[in-house]
Amino acid sequence: MWAAGAVKIRGCLAATSVPLRRCLKLGAAMAKSKFEYVRDFEADDTCLAHCWVVVRLDGRNFHRFAEKHNFTKPNDSRALHLMTKCAQTVMEELEDIVIAYGQSDEYSFVFKRKSNWFKRRASKFMTHVVSQFASSYVFYWRDYFEDQPLRYPPGFDGRVVVYPSNQTLKDYLSWRQADCHINNLYNTVFWALVQQSGLTPIQAQERLQVDEVMTKEVRLPAEMEGKKMVVTRTRTKAVPLHCDIIGDAFWKEHPEILDEDS
Amino acid sequence: MWAAGAVKIRGCLAATSVPLRRCLKLGAAMAKSKFEYVRDFEADDTCLAHCWVVVRLDGRNFHRFAEKHNFTKPNDSRALHLMTKCAQTVMEELEDIVIAYGQSDEYSFVFKRKSNWFKRRASKFMTHVVSQFASSYVFYWRDYFEDQPLRYPPGFDGRVVVYPSNQTLKDYLSWRQADCHINNLYNTVFWALVQQSGLTPIQAQERLQVDEVMTKEVRLPAEMEGKKMVVTRTRTKAVPLHCDIIGDAFWKEHPEILDEDS
Amino acid sequence: MWAAGAVKIRGCLAATSVPLRRCLKLGAAMAKSKFEYVRDFEADDTCLAHCWVVVRLDGRNFHRFAEKHNFTKPNDSRALHLMTKCAQTVMEELEDIVIAYGQSDEYSFVFKRKSNWFKRRASKFMTHVVSQFASSYVFYWRDYFEDQPLRYPPGFDGRVVVYPSNQTLKDYLSWRQADCHINNLYNTVFWALVQQSGLTPIQAQERLQVDEVMTKEVRLPAEMEGKKMVVTRTRTKAVPLHCDIIGDAFWKEHPEILDEDS
Amino acid sequence: MWAAGAVKIRGCLAATSVPLRRCLKLGAAMAKSKFEYVRDFEADDTCLAHCWVVVRLDGRNFHRFAEKHNFTKPNDSRALHLMTKCAQTVMEELEDIVIAYGQSDEYSFVFKRKSNWFKRRASKFMTHVVSQFASSYVFYWRDYFEDQPLRYPPGFDGRVVVYPSNQTLKDYLSWRQADCHINNLYNTVFWALVQQSGLTPIQAQERLQVDEVMTKEVRLPAEMEGKKMVVTRTRTKAVPLHCDIIGDAFWKEHPEILDEDS
Repeated sequence: MWAAGAVKIRGCLAATSVPLRRCLKLGAAMAKSKFEYVRDFEADDTCLAHCWVVVRLDGRNFHRFAEKHNFTKPNDSRALHLMTKCAQTVMEELEDIVIAYGQSDEYSFVFKRKSNWFKRRASKFMTHVVSQFASSYVFYWRDYFEDQPLRYPPGFDGRVVVYPSNQTLKDYLSWRQADCHINNLYNTVFWALVQQSGLTPIQAQERLQVDEVMTKEVRLPAEMEGKKMVVTRTRTKAVPLHCDIIGDAFWKEHPEILDEDS
Repeated sequence: MWAAGAVKIRGCLAATSVPLRRCLKLGAAMAKSKFEYVRDFEADDTCLAHCWVVVRLDGRNFHRFAEKHNFTKPNDSRALHLMTKCAQTVMEELEDIVIAYGQSDEYSFVFKRKSNWFKRRASKFMTHVVSQFASSYVFYWRDYFEDQPLRYPPGFDGRVVVYPSNQTLKDYLSWRQADCHINNLYNTVFWALVQQSGLTPIQAQERLQVDEVMTKEVRLPAEMEGKKMVVTRTRTKAVPLHCDIIGDAFWKEHPEILDEDS
Repeated sequence: MWAAGAVKIRGCLAATSVPLRRCLKLGAAMAKSKFEYVRDFEADDTCLAHCWVVVRLDGRNFHRFAEKHNFTKPNDSRALHLMTKCAQTVMEELEDIVIAYGQSDEYSFVFKRKSNWFKRRASKFMTHVVSQFASSYVFYWRDYFEDQPLRYPPGFDGRVVVYPSNQTLKDYLSWRQADCHINNLYNTVFWALVQQSGLTPIQAQERLQVDEVMTKEVRLPAEMEGKKMVVTRTRTKAVPLHCDIIGDAFWKEHPEILDEDS
Repeated sequence: MWAAGAVKIRGCLAATSVPLRRCLKLGAAMAKSKFEYVRDFEADDTCLAHCWVVVRLDGRNFHRFAEKHNFTKPNDSRALHLMTKCAQTVMEELEDIVIAYGQSDEYSFVFKRKSNWFKRRASKFMTHVVSQFASSYVFYWRDYFEDQPLRYPPGFDGRVVVYPSNQTLKDYLSWRQADCHINNLYNTVFWALVQQSGLTPIQAQERLQVDEVMTKEVRLPAEMEGKKMVVTRTRTKAVPLHCDIIGDAFWKEHPEILDEDS
């Protein structure tokens, strides 16, 4: 409801503003209160207190989306930068996100342990994140793909996972980075075999099943390492980084991320 | 992951493709499997079988959004049509939605009772709906607000509610329509008092607390009734309607919506 | 808390009875309010409204329990009657149970659709049922096993399942009865082979893997059908029956069980 | 199911033992598989991984139970010892409980962080605890109330709460102890006023609303401190203690309780 008074009237009617209600002369069929019992069917989905709340989103059908928009293989840096721009927007618009980590068409957002945003309701966390991300993706598309129009509005899915300790949270992020690294490695080699060695995709795939191939035939491009995307916060804004989060170094350099109280 | 082979490699590694893994020469730090235990923290959020699944979305902070984009009060028909366009897109892109009902900045989507889309996981239902809706909102904005640029990407929240019977589902939709009607009535009168009678917003609000005022001073505009928005399906596509869903008439005319088996 | 005033004091302290609290001169370490935040970790486990709530309990390790107490094979009627006595006690002590169905060492209890007992919290439904059943099992043991002492206190597990329609509830009960019938049939034949035909348990088991054996070699005892146990309610008390609940006949004879409103 | 082969047959039929099934000549009405879809209605209630799982049980209607069995006021030590005996039995029969803490008619059981007992299903944790406790209560009653027969089988309710850190678990236990202390203090004074000073219960209650009364008129009995009941584990068995668990001393003396890995 956007019109002035909307929020007001909801409160009003929920309470006992009999005059207004009589004034509006609602017929029996319109007696909203008759139907209000349906609210009892809403389930509570509060995230366990004192735990890290992670929302991970994934592009829906982005294999097709990349094809239709001629993404460069193995990694399209315009697409990666657009993803990071969207993650930044999410962090600036929503409250209590302390770090975001992404790769390819997925992004994870970590809400602080003691966040009480929307009473920690899982549905609020995940729908706010994915909707803000999705609208930002379309909104900022032109800044990264000037000459190439967006052909259709993309979809994303999301989920909430709750981690009870710093260690399990760090392991979650390490898991995503290891996954990113493996995918990047595979894709880099795969596309090198296709683009530089002239294999068909099927041949490249078969070759990758065989031991010890890669190191002999291809060199891993240096920029591959840049594909991991971290967004963190300074005092005032969300800042993108490209760095390792497996291992202790990152967490020692950024103690403020996990140590909310300090 | 959009690059060819991505889906493949996930399956591969999840299984036992030792050659590939050795080939990739992952160092100990990268041993993804070491971190995979973090998947056990994901909770199951399956919706109860044989029940209607409803996703309701709401604009985030649309009071401000309407101000910033000069929406006509009490209802901006461009905005309403854009909402309906987005709802149609959602129904065409996602599976198993049988009807959608909206008003103002909210929309409810009903998935069929026996839908097994994404194994009925609540998070999948709600995040797919809100992200597709949000990206569509930006994507189609220009078709409805030609001369007026979108100033920032809007957000939406969503929730899932599960209804066990046709009656409770119909009552849910009636509740939303009654809410719509009351809001429209209030807003129509409120803005008539402000725009036609020259009251300040505060005065208009006070006046609306007093009994029997309205019918004497203002006439309810005929088009107000058009603000309820229904999207339903023919055999092949999603079709918008503007009609009553309180009462039996609508459901008798459209028995196919609730009677999936017939 | 059983002493007079106990319930009182809880309420008191939860509110603002400063005098009492000061009176009790609680030291800092005892400041209960300092710890009360731990209540926020309790999750809501409300059962979906308007659905049938079923609690099913199962004996824990009853294979061993039956051995230790020399239960007659394949069915010990003392044990079955004790189970039914416990089910009756549960129905008389707890509210809103409309029917119970059991076999062997399991029993299912159906709470009425619109029960609001303990606000429909699943944990309340299941723990009240299993604890009342377990204490009754020990309490009434001697009435059924006069000469045979109970050697140790048995355990039971329980679960809650929610059914949205009369059909799914009836199918649930049919499923339990079919399971009961199959188990009875198997056990009757198995023990006939062992006790009457002199096979070892291993031989009997092997024989039961082979087609068409049974009807030639053994006669099914008539009383086997009596092993399904139903407990239902008259106006004033819980009444045990032994009858079929698969098929429509039972439900037509007892329309009041599912038709709460009539 | 207790008869030999019962577990077997369940497995059998779940798989594809066609011969057995044909052998049993099940009529169409008995086709168990037709009804097995009802299992899909069971919800997953897994407790979050790596968290402490606490089951707390409470006597149902123990105010009345205490009256009917002439419990001594303010504390009946027979009843307290019986409670502790039941808690010990629960700890010996069930797996993975590291500590239990009780007072009056309630007891809390803490399962170890990484317990995977019954796949961490909340319903299994709570129903096993309450049913074992309830059957033990009746079973051991005579050992503590020799001359006084148990008049009816008591009920208990239970709940599961999950704590993500050692601190929150310790605070939970401190909360229960503070509650215990406050109740004991109140009840001791209340019954002293009634039994020694000759006030009516109503008068005693009123007096307790007034500031600074107690310390002047009554002396707190020394044994009151013994009412907190802890059960912990040595290498081989469950051992009852009566000690403070608020503050660090207890945890420093018993590091093995929270430090499973050491």
